[in-house]
Amino acid sequence: MFDTIFKRTSYRGLYKDFPVPREDLTLILKAGLAAPSGCNKQSTSLIAIDDKEILKIIGELLNRKNIVSAPALILVLSQKIIANGGRCYYKQDFSAAVQNMLLAICELGYESCWLEGYVADNAESCAKITKLLGAPEDYELSVILPVGMADEELTYANKKSFEERAWFNGFRNS
Amino acid sequence: MFDTIFKRTSYRGLYKDFPVPREDLTLILKAGLAAPSGCNKQSTSLIAIDDKEILKIIGELLNRKNIVSAPALILVLSQKIIANGGRCYYKQDFSAAVQNMLLAICELGYESCWLEGYVADNAESCAKITKLLGAPEDYELSVILPVGMADEELTYANKKSFEERAWFNGFRNS
Repeated sequence: MFDTIFKRTSYRGLYKDFPVPREDLTLILKAGLAAPSGCNKQSTSLIAIDDKEILKIIGELLNRKNIVSAPALILVLSQKIIANGGRCYYKQDFSAAVQNMLLAICELGYESCWLEGYVADNAESCAKITKLLGAPEDYELSVILPVGMADEELTYANKKSFEERAWFNGFRNS
Repeated sequence: MFDTIFKRTSYRGLYKDFPVPREDLTLILKAGLAAPSGCNKQSTSLIAIDDKEILKIIGELLNRKNIVSAPALILVLSQKIIANGGRCYYKQDFSAAVQNMLLAICELGYESCWLEGYVADNAESCAKITKLLGAPEDYELSVILPVGMADEELTYANKKSFEERAWFNGFRNS
């Protein structure tokens, strides 16, 4: 499991034209749903898209190379459910679910990328997509995950060192 | 990896009085830092506590059984860094890091629980803790993860079925 955690990366390239079997997509969705949620409100729902016609429509609305070329997409929907103390954990809920799915995708030999800013930047097109899929208005599209086999080289984000971000028993203590 | 994803659960019981080796804590922290972050802002920092004196002080401030009995705690700190488009992804960032750490903790044979509402409910005590640890004011305590071996039985949250939360090619399509 640690191998998968450390090798997972955000893939922004083109995907190969190989389908993702339903069995794999189902396992990825199950991994997402297995994540915890604040006060167990389960505010995250998921729609996997592997229908070529629907992929084409989404690709026309969201014309980005790792969406257009992906053989499957996972749409992560959120309901802003109020939990204990009047707090709303929907961002934490979908993030935990997304992280589980990113690991599952990587473990199965596929690549993905957490597309969220891009979704927010294209809110109007995304609203069209959720409407097309029949989602009620209280289900908001939070994140899109493309899923498929990479057709380009993987790259890794430049990250701060362990010593700059993690310590023992005190701030900046090593 | 899927085994770990599916067997992880939120543990609210007492911990055994067995220490968590530094090697294991380091691996858990590394798993947390390996999570992606919005626009790679890396807004999450981590402090692991395994010093008995500090654990005692924290236990006096946060008198909750799975904090008081835990042989180690991980404090998840956030900086509210502004990313592209003026958006701030700190909640998503720490949630992805927490999810990776929960899986790492489970994989190594320990238990934990995502304590966030409790942290918010005890903001004053938490501010004392971060001050005691020397964290600057722009590092906010978001989540506490206790780490240790369970001394009570594990329980599992009652969750909605797959069919109620995940579909293919359309809302509530199976």
